[in-house]
Amino acid sequence: MELYIYAALACGLAALVYGWLTVRSVLSKSAGNARMQEIAGAIQEGARAYLNRQYTTIAIVGVVIFVLALILLGWQPAVGFLIGAVLSGAAGYVGMNVSVRANVRTAEAARQGLAAGLSLAFRSGAVTGLLVVGLGLIGVAGYYLILTQVLGLGADAANAEADARIVQNSLVSLGFGASLISIFARLGGGIFTKGADVGGDMVGKVEAGIPEDDPRNPATIADNVGDNVGDCAGMAADLFETYAVTTVATMVLASIYFTGDQKTALMLLPLAINGMAIITSIIGTFFVKLGKSNNIMGALYKGVLATGILSLIGLYFLMNAILPGGVSADLVAAGTKTFTGTSLFLCGVVGLAVTGLLIWITEYYTGTGKRPVTSIAKASVTGHGTNVIQGLAISMESTAPVALVICVGIIATYLLAGLFGIAIAVSTMLSLAGMIVALDAFGPVTDNAGGIAEMSGLEGDVRKTTDALDAVGNTTKAVTKGYAIGSAGLGALVLFAAYTEDLKYFITQKVGYFADVTQPTFGLNDPWVVVGLFFGGLLPYLFGGIAMTAVGRAAGAVVEEVRRQFKEMPGIMEGTQKPDYGKAVDMLTKAAIKEMQIPSLLPVLSPIVLYFVVFYAAGGDSAAKVEAFNALGAMLLGVIVTGLFVAISMTSGGGAWDNAKKYIEDGHFGGKGSDAHKAAVTGDTVGDPYKDTAGPAVNPMIKITNIVALLLLAALANF
Amino acid sequence: MELYIYAALACGLAALVYGWLTVRSVLSKSAGNARMQEIAGAIQEGARAYLNRQYTTIAIVGVVIFVLALILLGWQPAVGFLIGAVLSGAAGYVGMNVSVRANVRTAEAARQGLAAGLSLAFRSGAVTGLLVVGLGLIGVAGYYLILTQVLGLGADAANAEADARIVQNSLVSLGFGASLISIFARLGGGIFTKGADVGGDMVGKVEAGIPEDDPRNPATIADNVGDNVGDCAGMAADLFETYAVTTVATMVLASIYFTGDQKTALMLLPLAINGMAIITSIIGTFFVKLGKSNNIMGALYKGVLATGILSLIGLYFLMNAILPGGVSADLVAAGTKTFTGTSLFLCGVVGLAVTGLLIWITEYYTGTGKRPVTSIAKASVTGHGTNVIQGLAISMESTAPVALVICVGIIATYLLAGLFGIAIAVSTMLSLAGMIVALDAFGPVTDNAGGIAEMSGLEGDVRKTTDALDAVGNTTKAVTKGYAIGSAGLGALVLFAAYTEDLKYFITQKVGYFADVTQPTFGLNDPWVVVGLFFGGLLPYLFGGIAMTAVGRAAGAVVEEVRRQFKEMPGIMEGTQKPDYGKAVDMLTKAAIKEMQIPSLLPVLSPIVLYFVVFYAAGGDSAAKVEAFNALGAMLLGVIVTGLFVAISMTSGGGAWDNAKKYIEDGHFGGKGSDAHKAAVTGDTVGDPYKDTAGPAVNPMIKITNIVALLLLAALANF
Repeated sequence: MELYIYAALACGLAALVYGWLTVRSVLSKSAGNARMQEIAGAIQEGARAYLNRQYTTIAIVGVVIFVLALILLGWQPAVGFLIGAVLSGAAGYVGMNVSVRANVRTAEAARQGLAAGLSLAFRSGAVTGLLVVGLGLIGVAGYYLILTQVLGLGADAANAEADARIVQNSLVSLGFGASLISIFARLGGGIFTKGADVGGDMVGKVEAGIPEDDPRNPATIADNVGDNVGDCAGMAADLFETYAVTTVATMVLASIYFTGDQKTALMLLPLAINGMAIITSIIGTFFVKLGKSNNIMGALYKGVLATGILSLIGLYFLMNAILPGGVSADLVAAGTKTFTGTSLFLCGVVGLAVTGLLIWITEYYTGTGKRPVTSIAKASVTGHGTNVIQGLAISMESTAPVALVICVGIIATYLLAGLFGIAIAVSTMLSLAGMIVALDAFGPVTDNAGGIAEMSGLEGDVRKTTDALDAVGNTTKAVTKGYAIGSAGLGALVLFAAYTEDLKYFITQKVGYFADVTQPTFGLNDPWVVVGLFFGGLLPYLFGGIAMTAVGRAAGAVVEEVRRQFKEMPGIMEGTQKPDYGKAVDMLTKAAIKEMQIPSLLPVLSPIVLYFVVFYAAGGDSAAKVEAFNALGAMLLGVIVTGLFVAISMTSGGGAWDNAKKYIEDGHFGGKGSDAHKAAVTGDTVGDPYKDTAGPAVNPMIKITNIVALLLLAALANF
Repeated sequence: MELYIYAALACGLAALVYGWLTVRSVLSKSAGNARMQEIAGAIQEGARAYLNRQYTTIAIVGVVIFVLALILLGWQPAVGFLIGAVLSGAAGYVGMNVSVRANVRTAEAARQGLAAGLSLAFRSGAVTGLLVVGLGLIGVAGYYLILTQVLGLGADAANAEADARIVQNSLVSLGFGASLISIFARLGGGIFTKGADVGGDMVGKVEAGIPEDDPRNPATIADNVGDNVGDCAGMAADLFETYAVTTVATMVLASIYFTGDQKTALMLLPLAINGMAIITSIIGTFFVKLGKSNNIMGALYKGVLATGILSLIGLYFLMNAILPGGVSADLVAAGTKTFTGTSLFLCGVVGLAVTGLLIWITEYYTGTGKRPVTSIAKASVTGHGTNVIQGLAISMESTAPVALVICVGIIATYLLAGLFGIAIAVSTMLSLAGMIVALDAFGPVTDNAGGIAEMSGLEGDVRKTTDALDAVGNTTKAVTKGYAIGSAGLGALVLFAAYTEDLKYFITQKVGYFADVTQPTFGLNDPWVVVGLFFGGLLPYLFGGIAMTAVGRAAGAVVEEVRRQFKEMPGIMEGTQKPDYGKAVDMLTKAAIKEMQIPSLLPVLSPIVLYFVVFYAAGGDSAAKVEAFNALGAMLLGVIVTGLFVAISMTSGGGAWDNAKKYIEDGHFGGKGSDAHKAAVTGDTVGDPYKDTAGPAVNPMIKITNIVALLLLAALANF
């Protein structure tokens, strides 16, 4: 069976090799003329400076947590935490570095036409995508191998139980390391990018009447830096986290539900699925080719579809090979449901179907030409107010179909194979992460390419090509976010299952602190459970509110800085004076780093605070422990329930606002420069922090609360 | 013990008598000059025309439900439904009729100064307030008296159980009748008022640059009509509902938890508390007097504070009199917690404390001069976009302290006296409803008075007086909404408790349909429960989205109509031509009636649909029934959890936007006419449907889902 771990590791390495080759190929392309290189250099410098400061700040928090993990959980989990943090950071860092080099090359390639530009931008996105899954799989599978084979944990039957705990805690800690990077990267990057974008647009587009990415706008370099640190590095860290955490949680559940051969096989199943999907993703990247119709979105979807279909086939054969007795055999889950290998395979199919549906729904709600976007564009005709009202209406409405799909997914997989079925569905869904991140990371590259083309004054049709790529980038970014949130929501349910199962284990085994605790029922008729739900529910709201305020504040500062430069340097608007780009970048770096800290710690500390507050409020005795575990469990679900709606409404609404603006710019309802367009710009501005800061940062927030709860159990077990 | 029912009825009558005397006194005041009466006449006519159409539409739905209730539940519940609907409708109708007559008299009184204007406006609000509690109490206590004493239900020991069920179902149906009116009134009125307000402002203020309530604006009469049908009639129906439903639910819980003398006493306790609070509210109204400092808000709070303190004292003596053995005696709740009369009294204290805290938090988040409103005003300086972003941030943030207060309230009362403690706390909280509705109904009167003063060209300082009253009206409206939602959230928990207890009763008694059902545990580790939570959670979002779209659509239509009139009748702007006010009123009436129907039915049908879908999806056997009850129960909590956050964020955010605009108009950040002011008007426009349509309509929505679930159980029990 170890064979499968080695195979998974080999697939992970294949992803890295593919990435390395692609990077070489991308970098071998021409980086354009001196002016282009100068601009790209400024973006690179800004992005590097920002990420360095961001990681330094995270490192400080990381060291504190590492020490705490060392004391409370032991050295293996502490090292796991470190591995997760470093790999997650690396995925973002390397991806971002490729992205800031591919942008200028994409602009240059766009001079040769759409196909060349698309190919370059997509391949650079694919580097980040495959880095995420490659490093994720190597991290989890590799550390698992080290723990069990090199350190020999679990080999000695006498210590089997204790060893298994260490392995589990170490893997969960690995997930926590990834999560921590992810929330900081999402928030910090999100504040940076949207502070620049909103602030720059509000003075540039609305007040000064100059186009986006005009070199006269002092915030334009910062805006381009932001695309990379927010959309590329932030998303990479986010999906790295979901990927790692879900894989770990599925392994944990398998180790709880099964015994003997089944246990070994099903613990390795998520690793094997992920390895297989890396290969299908690599193959899928070759399907991304512009057809005769020049449909860019179509070209990208060809890649996704190919990966999906190949994964489906691969899944069938893989399960036949790995499951004891094959797909047709009866598998029995310990203590819960009886189900067959076919059921498990069908759960994987459901996972892929859910992915497809989420993509379809997001496209409907954010796609140009569909009812939602058109309705926002139409509402812009009557003013700023109606534009925003309609955008908010669409953002709220868009949550309903997503929630329904998730409900159906939960029920279908549960009926097929119990809670483990949900875990397998999410694992399969996430196995596509490489391809999906590739789509997303494509966005900032094309966005930057457009900016560079504009700033360096390339020919008009180059800008047209990059604009076409950029428009698609907006949709793929929205689609990825829908996928990221949907999978995070389902993944969090798996984590919640791990929480309840862990608790059950500690209580039945009467481990230390849990010796006098009875099993909590998590019944909704228990007021502590209700309180936990409300408390969990308020976190995404509070978090979102803080994040929006941070963007507003950063953007306001940028507006004032840009206004100051316009006023003090009148030569800027005439084109005779060069704006001080560095000032805006610097300002935003400081603002983002400062503003990301408190909200990032909110989900880390909340579970711990809630547990102890409830414990003491309920009397501080063993019955109080039960209520505290009840409240903590309910909090985990509360944060998922409102978090899902907050995140989906924000990302869909933001995407819809953005494309409503584009739709008007395409000449509808008055076109560019009309009052409707001004109203649409306002909507887009509001949508920016919605879709790129607060909304996506809710993702890691949901999972961090869940992981911290798991680790809290592990830490309490040592007392 | 019947004595207490008669006393409660007498208190209810006292409220009506007070209301009647006040109406006579208000109507005896001068209605101003011919121009003022003409305008007021147009508002009266529009409001009456709208309410007549609204009630006709509701009547059609009502007849269908009446027939269904008759078939499924029997004639007593059907009659209860009718009583609830008629009384709730009457409270709104009469209150609105007083309001549209007090407006012009307030404008006239304002010519004599602030004190006279305040006194008249507040007293007319007090009519609606006391009507709500008077009719609510008479309805519940009266029908209870008829059922138990006149019809003799429960008198025969042989049928005691079955009779008690009939009484309970009849009272719950009464609550349902009230709820049905309330959701239609909230939504329809909300769409009307905000369609007029948003549409009118967007053309008038922003495009044409004429002030609010300028007689040249063709939407101005519609705007004033809207204040009455939305804020006055809508809020009256809403709080009538919460009041009636909570009283009923507390009685139901008392009948379940207790036996013998305790049962009789505790069932009557909510009626007695409500009766007592009517007297203290009447006394409280006399405390509303303008002090030397001319602080209007202070004058109103004096009334609230007096009512609160008197109620606290009254509560103590009342409980000593009504509880077997007095406040110091041990009361034992059947099967759950043991607690004393003192604990129960303290629960009442907690209820009042929660009320005070909710008022304080809402004031903080919506009050001029506090950090949240100032931050929005400041963000307006940098444009429309940052204004909306900051407003959304504040709206999200404001939910956190409210949720925490509710959590603490739940825990404190639960620790004191179990679930019944929560019920008593909510009952006490709602006993203040008369005073609170008075504060709210004060708003549209002063708003209208200002409009009439403006349109009829009264002297400048009259307008100043009405403006001062109007500004306070904005805050009191926000405060009332915070109170309405907080109490609805807690009230819904009481309803959820009633649901679980009912279910327990039916299952343990093996009643018909429930004979083969085992007790659902509502455990969060059951996927059906999770699905129920998600499904319930999506309802407020979907509902809010539809409501926002409806307002946007109605406002868009008004904008086009106003633009058309300005274009086709150039004399309007010059003041030589009279706009066609009736057209806008007519258009909005049709739009509101049409748009309110589908969302209103959403909460009515959802519980039923969910129950049967889950039942069949889970296999359609007796185990499936358990899962369906699990999912249904979880749905009830899901709708409370997200509903609470959606509603609070909308009402607080909307109030903050409104006052940020006023703050700028007072001369800060550039003052009236500045770019910051324009941005603030956009924020206010967005906040309008937030705070006056979607947000408050979530209230009745939450409770309807809960009540329908209760009635579904009752109906299933008959099969």
